[in-house]
Amino acid sequence: MTSTRATLIQVAERAGVSLASTSRALHGTGASKAMVERVRAAAAELGYSADAIGRSLRLKKTSQIAFAVADIGNPVYVEIMRGIHEVLAPHGYRVVVMSTGDTATSTAELIHSLHGGFVDGMIVIPLRTDDELIEQIGQAPVPVVVIGRAMSDRGISSVSTDSAAGIGAAVRHVVSLGRRRIGFLNGPLDTTPGSSRQRGFDEAVSAKDFSAEGTDVEVAADFTVAAGIEAARKLLDRPHRPDAIVAANDLLAIGAVRAARERGLSVPRDVAVTGMDDTELGQVFLPRLTSVSLGSAERGRAAARLMLGLTEDADAPAQQISVGTELFVRESTVDQNGEDAE
Amino acid sequence: MTSTRATLIQVAERAGVSLASTSRALHGTGASKAMVERVRAAAAELGYSADAIGRSLRLKKTSQIAFAVADIGNPVYVEIMRGIHEVLAPHGYRVVVMSTGDTATSTAELIHSLHGGFVDGMIVIPLRTDDELIEQIGQAPVPVVVIGRAMSDRGISSVSTDSAAGIGAAVRHVVSLGRRRIGFLNGPLDTTPGSSRQRGFDEAVSAKDFSAEGTDVEVAADFTVAAGIEAARKLLDRPHRPDAIVAANDLLAIGAVRAARERGLSVPRDVAVTGMDDTELGQVFLPRLTSVSLGSAERGRAAARLMLGLTEDADAPAQQISVGTELFVRESTVDQNGEDAE
Repeated sequence: MTSTRATLIQVAERAGVSLASTSRALHGTGASKAMVERVRAAAAELGYSADAIGRSLRLKKTSQIAFAVADIGNPVYVEIMRGIHEVLAPHGYRVVVMSTGDTATSTAELIHSLHGGFVDGMIVIPLRTDDELIEQIGQAPVPVVVIGRAMSDRGISSVSTDSAAGIGAAVRHVVSLGRRRIGFLNGPLDTTPGSSRQRGFDEAVSAKDFSAEGTDVEVAADFTVAAGIEAARKLLDRPHRPDAIVAANDLLAIGAVRAARERGLSVPRDVAVTGMDDTELGQVFLPRLTSVSLGSAERGRAAARLMLGLTEDADAPAQQISVGTELFVRESTVDQNGEDAE
Repeated sequence: MTSTRATLIQVAERAGVSLASTSRALHGTGASKAMVERVRAAAAELGYSADAIGRSLRLKKTSQIAFAVADIGNPVYVEIMRGIHEVLAPHGYRVVVMSTGDTATSTAELIHSLHGGFVDGMIVIPLRTDDELIEQIGQAPVPVVVIGRAMSDRGISSVSTDSAAGIGAAVRHVVSLGRRRIGFLNGPLDTTPGSSRQRGFDEAVSAKDFSAEGTDVEVAADFTVAAGIEAARKLLDRPHRPDAIVAANDLLAIGAVRAARERGLSVPRDVAVTGMDDTELGQVFLPRLTSVSLGSAERGRAAARLMLGLTEDADAPAQQISVGTELFVRESTVDQNGEDAE
């Protein structure tokens, strides 16, 4: 394992001088000779290279790992990032967040930018994947770890979760509550999450123990609240209105709750709503969202551990890690407290 | 102004070959001579340098601008980032998001990392500022634009907003609704936003036209929902319970709504709640939050325009831009629709 690196702050504290002075002394700009000696001595004691940046350039080490996602505004990514940070920070790595854009092509272009040498590795969650992107990842100049679908056959390290099973758990939960007509609110089917969640829904309703009377499916334009409101309106305006909506993520679920309220429907009394990702946002929403956790922070930690291994040995064999799912039942499906869930 | 740069995708499309092939041809790894010629011809037609990355390294240009904030989980930063992206993307810049950490020292260390040459500039929102950080910004090796307090006297370009005036507008709004006891839910007073919002509250209650009967102040541990719940409980448990809570941001306001609901209080009937930042999260929350917009996207766009100017002429004089505030009244203070706001 890489040892924990001394930081500039620790050097400044050891030398008993300001951070600005430490920075100047290490760069040799505008610092007295005495100051330079004092700071370099402190740096040497702590094992902080007096020319850490120059050294990092020579070694092509940036001490930065990129985390790339399609929509930085989705709170699930913040939670994954916290998991990544938790594992990488003690090893002296800074996490920088980048946007992949919505398409496989824009994601491939981001992978291409790794030739610029700005980061030592990238953890990426591709929203859409094609063969070209997979090829681009395979030939990337720095280690890449994928969070999303398993890539064992491609020699790419990946962290995945069984979101299809998670959707099944949500469907069985609302059916067990006596709901008879289940609406599935999915995101685009040509995305990695959209296709796996659709598979999960299809498997759940075709299972022998599925006892609801009917199902409806609406596909939202993307995985946002605004798209969720739009698509949920269509679900709720069907001749046989669903009495439960299983949404493909928490943002779509929040959109479904809003659409229900617009129509004067009470959640959960008239319509039970489930989300997926178990975000903090869903936990503080009113009503608190019933949601399937896909182990966000744990997926981040697992990806970061794979990355640490690859930064030490880029030729290490690719590994696949799978993280479990768990349903958390809250107010959006079960009225747990008459005062709190109106 | 910098002209719009051709992208790798455009080169691939012009050459009529895959992105992966284009990437290989430009890097000269594993591509046939014919392929290399075809791709280089397409690149030349579009003005895309056949060795763009090598060139960018020689020119010390990375085509990346950093956006650094304390808490990537706060939705206001996502909205500022969208404004930044909107202005910088057409100029071929990628925005990378970094964390400043909570302190002036950790922010100064991040500024120090700019010596690594990974970005062409940084737009930073310091949560806490001290002289050392300001000095570090002044001697940064690439242009830095600050979003936060105005820094005209320091020769640093900055974008600010009058959050003190915004708090005043929120206070006057709840007083105009007939609320008599106003609770102010602030974040830490040693932060830039905490100190300016406190000033705004103090000015509002000492104004001649302030007609409420009393005020209370609680300072949350930070600007998050969890800290907001905690501090709002204390406000609501005072002997004279506030009938309005003015919160220093939308996350604290959401915490206040949750704390009110825990106590069986209805928002807005028993307690009116206002937020600040006018985030999308506040707009989809139930009840929709009354909130003071500080022009998030516009602050992002303004900072990005300043950055573009500085990347062209690093010695251009520092500029200060101020962005206006606006109160948006919604369900958390005014029951606008009996069906929707329970």
